[in-house]
Amino acid sequence: MTGATQTVREIGEFGLISALADALPAGVTAGPGLELGIGDDCAVWRPAAGERIVVTTDSLVQGIHFRLDWTDWEQLGHKTLAVNLSDLASMGAVPRFAVVTLALRGDERVEDLRALYRGLGALAERTGTLVAGGDIVRSPEALAFHVTAVGETRGARVIPRSGARPGDVIGVSGTIGASAAGLALLLDPGSPAAGTATADLLREAHLRPEPRIALGGILLEQGASAGMDLSDGLFGDLPKILAASRVSARVDAARLPVAAAVRALFPDRWLGMATRGGEDYELLFTAPPDRWGAVSMAADKAGVPVTAIGEIVEARNGRPDLLMVREDGTEERVAAGAFDHFR
Amino acid sequence: MTGATQTVREIGEFGLISALADALPAGVTAGPGLELGIGDDCAVWRPAAGERIVVTTDSLVQGIHFRLDWTDWEQLGHKTLAVNLSDLASMGAVPRFAVVTLALRGDERVEDLRALYRGLGALAERTGTLVAGGDIVRSPEALAFHVTAVGETRGARVIPRSGARPGDVIGVSGTIGASAAGLALLLDPGSPAAGTATADLLREAHLRPEPRIALGGILLEQGASAGMDLSDGLFGDLPKILAASRVSARVDAARLPVAAAVRALFPDRWLGMATRGGEDYELLFTAPPDRWGAVSMAADKAGVPVTAIGEIVEARNGRPDLLMVREDGTEERVAAGAFDHFR
Repeated sequence: MTGATQTVREIGEFGLISALADALPAGVTAGPGLELGIGDDCAVWRPAAGERIVVTTDSLVQGIHFRLDWTDWEQLGHKTLAVNLSDLASMGAVPRFAVVTLALRGDERVEDLRALYRGLGALAERTGTLVAGGDIVRSPEALAFHVTAVGETRGARVIPRSGARPGDVIGVSGTIGASAAGLALLLDPGSPAAGTATADLLREAHLRPEPRIALGGILLEQGASAGMDLSDGLFGDLPKILAASRVSARVDAARLPVAAAVRALFPDRWLGMATRGGEDYELLFTAPPDRWGAVSMAADKAGVPVTAIGEIVEARNGRPDLLMVREDGTEERVAAGAFDHFR
Repeated sequence: MTGATQTVREIGEFGLISALADALPAGVTAGPGLELGIGDDCAVWRPAAGERIVVTTDSLVQGIHFRLDWTDWEQLGHKTLAVNLSDLASMGAVPRFAVVTLALRGDERVEDLRALYRGLGALAERTGTLVAGGDIVRSPEALAFHVTAVGETRGARVIPRSGARPGDVIGVSGTIGASAAGLALLLDPGSPAAGTATADLLREAHLRPEPRIALGGILLEQGASAGMDLSDGLFGDLPKILAASRVSARVDAARLPVAAAVRALFPDRWLGMATRGGEDYELLFTAPPDRWGAVSMAADKAGVPVTAIGEIVEARNGRPDLLMVREDGTEERVAAGAFDHFR
């Protein structure tokens, strides 16, 4: 056993590998399909006959994507895996396994990293994702966690970005803006809003997003035409669907599903939070109008309501445009643009 | 087009993605089996019927795994992919595609990163590896490159670590110690040895390792029982095969394939470089004695000679031991131990 204050440097790379494997639920390191997992050079997986494999990779870097004074280690482990599973979900794929790379300085407490793995392991167990190995490397400065998640299709089809057609309804799951509101509260802990009861929920939305895996399956099954997850905000991500599908969109500001708490705590900022905030990890999708009713009913039944926020229209002169209908009925052309970490 | 001095910050994340995709050979971003690649949330791959997929992930971090004053960007791109393909090769798998994560500060020159992608792309093209996407994240300090490579088996079987049996011959491909010698020369550029003609070859061995993909296929086909690639040095990696297979090994120091240049330039250090140096990315494997002749002939024919360096023996009291027979005929028990970045 490792003591509560032991560091990575003290137990070394190989001691850490077994301490972490040990922190995962038993069912998460081995399971059907996984022929080789933790402890060999590669993971070996037996794909289901006729299905495709779906692969995504996403990283959390200290100081860029998280701060240790904001998050606890279990939340961080959860989010590290969740942001990857969210990408699989957006395509309608079923998560199967993940490989995890930890970039560490060496002065981390082993117990904290075990808490990270407990958070990651709990989400893995709940979603049927096996942890099949990975890598531990030294980092001179910031911690970073890199996950590659592998899923399988349900029947050889996925929901791509490129399938939106004029007339399709644009839908979004859950509510948007809560993560940005939570981040604003974390950035300004002394504000009156930060002490309210709803502030906890908003911070939780930022620190512990829930990947919409079941909903992704429903969208695929019910005939969604295009989709992605909302990591860069509605006005950052919707233009990617529009560009890939060569269509335009009209979004109705009055129909955006923004939680009442976000509107109440941020009366001047809620619209920006909902449209440009990012990290909501809700699903953004399009569906033909004759499929909307079925999509919406199945989503309700699964406990993740979806809201129609607008429609896909023809691109004029072949140029994808995003138009927002304001609450007063006037229309504005939205400057597309995801949050860019480098600009 | 991007100017020669433009930085990542100037063209932004999305500008960089297209500048990099553009630096790859055309055949590397699309190909049979890859149904969705760069530009969507996930890569979608159609596995070959009956085969397994094989997944590995490996990272290079600035200041830990590379220094920009030692390597050029094309070499660095090559090595970033090569260390991953080497893991696939060690199992006898065929590389299919890779996803690449770049962790960047933002002040990098776009042209340097395009050179990185040219080096990575050239190796990808030559080995039939598609580049299927990835992620670009900001890093507060050091650059880091993370690759996950996905391969397929040849006929549902792989060469695991766990298959070595008493009596098996222990083989290694190429020569060992050259990478450690090259690193020593890079660390001490003012030494007389560093100016010699062979020094270039040794530095090249460190900076531009060649993954033994064809040899991996030969080993699988000819019945190798266990294998891995030499990233942590013979005395770091062989114990992993011994532990996984629950056997011991006797290695003959006189038979280690150490290049004459390494012995000549480092008369006092060559043995340590060959056994504990790491990063040779040669294949270490075991084969039943009646398969050795066929393995060795097929390897010669493929232009990558293999050398028998010892044999697998029963573990006494169930404890895997690594014994080295010195050149004078005496035997010593080797303290197993890979290089540990944290200790």
